[in-house]
Amino acid sequence: MVDPIEFNQAIERLANYLESGDLDGAADYLRQLHPADRAELFAELKSAEQAAMVERLATSELAEVFEQLDEEDMAGVAQHLDLETLADVLDEMEPDMAADLLGELEPQQAAEVLEQMEEPADVAALMTHEPDTAGGIMTSAPPSLRRFWTVAESLQFLKAHYAEEEDFYTLYVLDRYARLIGVVGLKALILAEPVQTIEEIMDRQVISVQASADQEEVAQLLQRYDLVALPVVDSEARLVGIVTIDDIVDVIQEEATEDIYRLAQMSSDSEIYHPILQSVRNRLPWLLVNMATAFLAASIVSLFESTIAQAAMLAAFMPIVAGQGGNAGTQTMTIIVRSLALKEIEPRDTLWALWHEGRVGVINGLAVGVCVALISGLWQGNPYLGLVIGLAMVGNLVVAALAGVLVPMALKMVRVDPALASSVFVTTFTDIGGFLLFLGLATYFLRYLL
Amino acid sequence: MVDPIEFNQAIERLANYLESGDLDGAADYLRQLHPADRAELFAELKSAEQAAMVERLATSELAEVFEQLDEEDMAGVAQHLDLETLADVLDEMEPDMAADLLGELEPQQAAEVLEQMEEPADVAALMTHEPDTAGGIMTSAPPSLRRFWTVAESLQFLKAHYAEEEDFYTLYVLDRYARLIGVVGLKALILAEPVQTIEEIMDRQVISVQASADQEEVAQLLQRYDLVALPVVDSEARLVGIVTIDDIVDVIQEEATEDIYRLAQMSSDSEIYHPILQSVRNRLPWLLVNMATAFLAASIVSLFESTIAQAAMLAAFMPIVAGQGGNAGTQTMTIIVRSLALKEIEPRDTLWALWHEGRVGVINGLAVGVCVALISGLWQGNPYLGLVIGLAMVGNLVVAALAGVLVPMALKMVRVDPALASSVFVTTFTDIGGFLLFLGLATYFLRYLL
Repeated sequence: MVDPIEFNQAIERLANYLESGDLDGAADYLRQLHPADRAELFAELKSAEQAAMVERLATSELAEVFEQLDEEDMAGVAQHLDLETLADVLDEMEPDMAADLLGELEPQQAAEVLEQMEEPADVAALMTHEPDTAGGIMTSAPPSLRRFWTVAESLQFLKAHYAEEEDFYTLYVLDRYARLIGVVGLKALILAEPVQTIEEIMDRQVISVQASADQEEVAQLLQRYDLVALPVVDSEARLVGIVTIDDIVDVIQEEATEDIYRLAQMSSDSEIYHPILQSVRNRLPWLLVNMATAFLAASIVSLFESTIAQAAMLAAFMPIVAGQGGNAGTQTMTIIVRSLALKEIEPRDTLWALWHEGRVGVINGLAVGVCVALISGLWQGNPYLGLVIGLAMVGNLVVAALAGVLVPMALKMVRVDPALASSVFVTTFTDIGGFLLFLGLATYFLRYLL
Repeated sequence: MVDPIEFNQAIERLANYLESGDLDGAADYLRQLHPADRAELFAELKSAEQAAMVERLATSELAEVFEQLDEEDMAGVAQHLDLETLADVLDEMEPDMAADLLGELEPQQAAEVLEQMEEPADVAALMTHEPDTAGGIMTSAPPSLRRFWTVAESLQFLKAHYAEEEDFYTLYVLDRYARLIGVVGLKALILAEPVQTIEEIMDRQVISVQASADQEEVAQLLQRYDLVALPVVDSEARLVGIVTIDDIVDVIQEEATEDIYRLAQMSSDSEIYHPILQSVRNRLPWLLVNMATAFLAASIVSLFESTIAQAAMLAAFMPIVAGQGGNAGTQTMTIIVRSLALKEIEPRDTLWALWHEGRVGVINGLAVGVCVALISGLWQGNPYLGLVIGLAMVGNLVVAALAGVLVPMALKMVRVDPALASSVFVTTFTDIGGFLLFLGLATYFLRYLL
């Protein structure tokens, strides 16, 4: 039994080999690790160290490393290989990973390597699909069977042709036009009698997806139907590949990260390790958009300049009303955005959501409003101030609930990702709503506040 | 080939059967659907309709429905079954799902049903583990082999005992003490020669996890090593179950949703379909905490009441400085929180992150500061106002960067989920920082602002 390695210990051990100049020892150590760990250590090495290790590892070992490297690290490691070795490595990689690696190279270099490969067809075919679609994340199809074969013939066929291929868990049954007509799990094949035909043991209810389908749809199908692999078909229902669940796990993780970053008003491909200037590019545009809406809110406040000049303590309470509205609006908006992403609600549920969130807004508004009213009234010794701020609070939490539902639903209806722009709009509404309500009521009741 | 059903059409078709009183037709229609679709339609039925369908479906069909139902719907459907039928259904379910269903029943009822089951041992064993641990999400182990068996003997053993069991993709090899010593994929078994021993074809590098491990750790191992199933062992290295990747997909989805809701300051188990009062409970406490910090910020503003009384237009610019700080702080905090969750950074990277984000803060601060200074100065026709607000903006974006890094890192170090409380602290810092800087500078330069 092997425990997952302690990463820091492994790094130290590898560093010891390298510092003492024992490059063969370092390569031996890397060789005995799980490919995932080997790749992670590899990414941490200096360029010269990578070059020394690349020389010492076999193409199959390098293929395993590339299959596990993050895409951004691939090109850096690949530059240590000459064209021919790189082509050999690519031949040994899973086709989808090989296509990813080629996609990271300069187009010119990729074309040259592809030419040197022994079996470029699978990989080249995969490279024609859009990333983020079923075709873009699929890998080559596993062995396919014919329905009139017997189980014994099928096992013979697999032994003859697929001993060296990557792992597979399900086999697909095709008709004479290569169209998908059934699926056979390996367990069913193992348990069947040798004389049974594939037709007898196959499951005809195959769920499949078009190559052009969005990767989010693929993720939902795999999740919904608890599949380990989903067959991908072309427009004529011919099997062209499969998407395996481990790729979907990455998709789900990525989509969640994208939504989280978009909700926080950053470019969805932000990364902590981005260079400074890219981080600025990912964030500054959003800050400037917010600045514009902040000036809009400021112009509302400036309408009430004479009120504030007469009762300057009002300025202290402005952030409370606007801030609570912003928080409540963000809560509602976030639950709507996430529920849309998880397909728990749809735009046609807008009225229901307004009624639901509106009532939550009124209750929370009353609760917060009473608290704020009491504290403010006591602090400034003026019950009218409490009344004004309390009423504004109730009103603004209702504004927050309405904006929190309507903004993401409207974006969804016009096919913009609700996570993308909801925050800006919702906080603009709650800022403006808060200032208008609070300063408007304060102006109306001004003689009681002085 | 079966396309995934169009859910709305399916609902309508089922409703047609039910409205015309054709209960057998409705049951036949449900029967022919994929269990995932059958379960989803089932959850939409009225209680009386569910009862009518339950009567008509076989226990194996009901078992499939329960395996696909959301946990919150399980108890409702279960109440239509008498104890005996429920026990039969549970016997046919995958053990982890059966344990989940029993967990949803009243303890008294669960105990009674468990007593009626034919094979309660597996399920009862699963129920002893904490939810959210490897033990809590695992299911019973697939068939296990011994290392000295031949491939032919192993296939014979599987055919004799496991034809009726749920699907499996990998088999585990145990020693005489039931300790895990190897793993054999079904593909390896199919391709091996009948006379080979299991020892010859098994992989000794088995990655496993303790039953008490957190489900997040399980998810990371499955992802890192691209596994379809992860064996779970007890403290003496004996195999007690497996966690399959489809369960992990749900875990990853749940953990992301939790983080998203916590970042938006809601209870992490919020749901759009929660009753109103529960939604209030999930959100109101956070609004009240924010209210408290808002009063803190208000008390800072009130220190400058005389400044504001003399130059009331300052009130209009307060939300701009604080708001931009809040946005920039949220950006930094979110990228730190998410990178911590994805294990891309750790608390020991704090200094590096401060240096990285601090520089981003200075650059964004200068960019936004210059814009705000120009607009404000021109709007009010006073370059000194521009200078004051521009300087405050640069300062507050640096405060935002520091708070955005330090708050989540500090929470992580004291083992509080950084997603849980970072937002409150960061915006408190940027509010107070913004008001202090802006109003402090304004007070200092007051004679130039009048």
